[in-house]
This record gives sequence, structure tokens and C-alpha cells, in this order.
Amino acid sequence: MSGFVSFVSSGPGDPELLTLKAVDRLKKAGAILFDDLSSGPILEHASPDADLVGVGKRAGRPSPKQDHVSRLLVEYAQTGAHVVRLKSGDAGIFGRLEEEITALTEAGIKFEVIPGVTSACAAAAAAQIPLTRRLMARRVQFVTGHDVAGALPGDLHLQSLADPGATTVLFMPKRTFPALAEKLFETGLRRDCPALLAENVSHPDQTLQRTTMEDLATQLSQEISTAPGLILFGELAESP
Amino acid sequence: MSGFVSFVSSGPGDPELLTLKAVDRLKKAGAILFDDLSSGPILEHASPDADLVGVGKRAGRPSPKQDHVSRLLVEYAQTGAHVVRLKSGDAGIFGRLEEEITALTEAGIKFEVIPGVTSACAAAAAAQIPLTRRLMARRVQFVTGHDVAGALPGDLHLQSLADPGATTVLFMPKRTFPALAEKLFETGLRRDCPALLAENVSHPDQTLQRTTMEDLATQLSQEISTAPGLILFGELAESP
Repeated sequence: MSGFVSFVSSGPGDPELLTLKAVDRLKKAGAILFDDLSSGPILEHASPDADLVGVGKRAGRPSPKQDHVSRLLVEYAQTGAHVVRLKSGDAGIFGRLEEEITALTEAGIKFEVIPGVTSACAAAAAAQIPLTRRLMARRVQFVTGHDVAGALPGDLHLQSLADPGATTVLFMPKRTFPALAEKLFETGLRRDCPALLAENVSHPDQTLQRTTMEDLATQLSQEISTAPGLILFGELAESP
Repeated sequence: MSGFVSFVSSGPGDPELLTLKAVDRLKKAGAILFDDLSSGPILEHASPDADLVGVGKRAGRPSPKQDHVSRLLVEYAQTGAHVVRLKSGDAGIFGRLEEEITALTEAGIKFEVIPGVTSACAAAAAAQIPLTRRLMARRVQFVTGHDVAGALPGDLHLQSLADPGATTVLFMPKRTFPALAEKLFETGLRRDCPALLAENVSHPDQTLQRTTMEDLATQLSQEISTAPGLILFGELAESP
């Protein structure tokens, strides 16, 4: 008896940013494996009979190992249940989706992936700025600021990130930002390039701070909040 | 008397990929200005009394000028109505959002931006591939393949696009793809780099074709369908 897994993107956190399809799958699920950031009111859509299993990973706190999450997912599906694997933002962006897909494929379990609102789009919308602009900012890129050990990845493509014609959104950026900013200045990015620090995007305690790359690097070298955040930079960060 | 504008992201087309917030705004709107790709069943959420105004822009067909759309938006809002400006995918990505925001700001009209599911995320989800991968593919980028005249933009950052460590999604790519692919090969991208052509993403007639950059360039130099499509390329395009 083999179940079925719906990878459901929960969006950035505001339960109103769930898609209709996500709500449908939450209502139908026999078990829901959820991350910290996709919990709370979103889980109110679950059936009263559903198993709700927290498998949260969050910056700065110990978290279950990825292979443990994958194994749990397979085990729940093998009970024959319709399992929802709820993932923050869009499941395909920095969600380690591939490792869970591989585990399901190896176990012969079928699945679907339901896309959602990525936090990058939600942050830009909250700040009322577009991510692209005609004639300039024709490229938008999302990058993670930390590797598995939490350090700045050594193989970042700095020329891409320092391109003044792009809008860049850094995911999980705060600890490594001062080091990254310094590398980008050396690669040619201007120190006063506009930047936006967005924390708790779409949650009631959301904050948006408009600043510059240099000032933000100074700020984050002195004090880092534990709130989940994104950093958006590029000319559009100060529009309109 | 000044109204209010909600920029509402409709997602890629499947009405089930609307967010709850988008549905709420569609129900409340007195007027809805919509693009071609965000119409059909999505508009069934509108109130029977709402004015539905098509302002569609679509590749290969004549379309209303952008300043005409902005003016219409201002005029509807100035009647005091709650106006929804419905935009395909996510409003902040290749949606010319900024020009409409500028028009509203100049007219003193308040607005909100509601993010949505971008077609890039929907295409990857449909193909069951993630857009990022731990240890590689730490960067995902969205780029448009045409400028205002429909030609390949002359100022693309080719090194960013040829980076083998990125996943790239090209929006409105088909006409200019053979020329772009040739430039990327010259910049170092391998000719057999995996590619995915996704057409009518999330619609009932969706098609997904897994191929390579070289084969796709050959194909699109010979025949181009008029269906709206995206091209995704990078190592992840052939996973898992």
C-alpha cells in the first residue's frame, strides 16, 4: 500500500497568501509534515484527524537532519496516507526539495509539486517595488547567503551578483552579509547601491528597512536579529 | 473622490493557483483590468456588477500601449472604485508594474501589491524539478528574452547566463532563443546543457519538453508556436 505526497508551497507566511490548491490539499491530507515558517494559522486548514508533524529547520537553531525528514516522509506515505509536505515560500526555491523527491522516487512513491508565492516576490510586493524594470533590471536573481555549514559559499558567481543591471534577492543572508558585501564591492558593485532588509515578510510583525549596501553591511556586522529575513539589492530597491 | 488599486497577481493561469487574497480582492472589486493570460475562469470570482476590462498584451499580437493602460487605471480609480489590476504570474516580475505604480503615484491614488505564483515556479513544479540545489545551483535567475521591440536585448549579462552553477528561466524567449543560445555557447555554456521548454504552464493544454540547449535552438530556428512559453536551463533541467 503506497500513499501519495503533495509538496505544498505555503507562501511566505500570511495565510491569505496560500493558493486555493494548497488549501485543498491541506484539507484532504491524512498527515502534514511542516516547517517552522509554514505553521500557525496555515495549519488551521488541516482536517481535525490529520497528523501534524513539525520538522522545522530555521537559521540559528538545531534542526532535524535532512535525511531524517526524508525518511519520515517516506514512512508516512507508506502507511497509505495522502501526505502533505508543507514548505515555506515556493517549494522549489531553497527548500531542499530535490533530496525529498529522490527519497520518494527510490521508494516508488508518487508525488506532485504545488508551486507557491516565494518570499522574494512577497518582500518586493510589501515594499511596493517591482523586481524587474524595462530597459534596465531585466534580470532578477535569488541566491542563498549560506552553505550547509552556515558560512558564505565559496563558489558564488560574484560577477553575476555585482551586475548593476540585476535585482538580487539574498535568502538567509544576515550572518554572511558583511563578508559578501565586501566581496561585491571589490568586484565593482557601488557601496551606495540601494538595499532593502525585509524581516518576517507578510507576517504581522513584518519590517522593511530601506538602506544601502554599505550601511547594511555595517549594521549587520554589529547586530543581527534572529528574525527570518531577506535582503534585496539593486537600483529598484529605492524605487519608485 | 479617489479610489484604490489592488495590483493582484493571478499566477500562471490555473485558477486553483490564485491566492486567497487574490480571490478576496477579485470579489470586492468594482472594476477589473486584466491581461489576456489572466482571464477566463479566474474572472468568475468577480462580482456580477464589476466592470471587466481587457487590456491584454501578448507576444506576437498588437496590444494596447502601456501609457494607455496606465491612464485607464487612473481613470477607473478616479471614479472612486476599488480597482483590481490583474497581472499574470507575479506582478513584480516582467509585468511593467513600475510604470503603472508611477502613474498612480502621480495621480495621488493609493494602492497595494499582492504577490503571486510566478510562471517560473509553476513550470518547475509541473516538471517536478526544484530551481535550486544544495552545493550547486545556488543561484536561480529570471531573464526576459526580448526588449520592447521584440529583439534580443543588447545588454544581457552573458557571463551570468552562461554560469553552469545557476538555473535560468527565460521569459518570452522563443523568437530570440537561437541567437541567445549562440551567444551563450560562445561565452562557455555547453551545447548539451539540459533545457526544458514549458508552454501554457498550468493550463489544461500545458506541454513540457525536455531537451538540450543546442537541440532547442535548432528547433526554434525552424518553427515557433504562438503558445506562451518559458525556457528553463541548467543542470537541474534534467533532474531528478
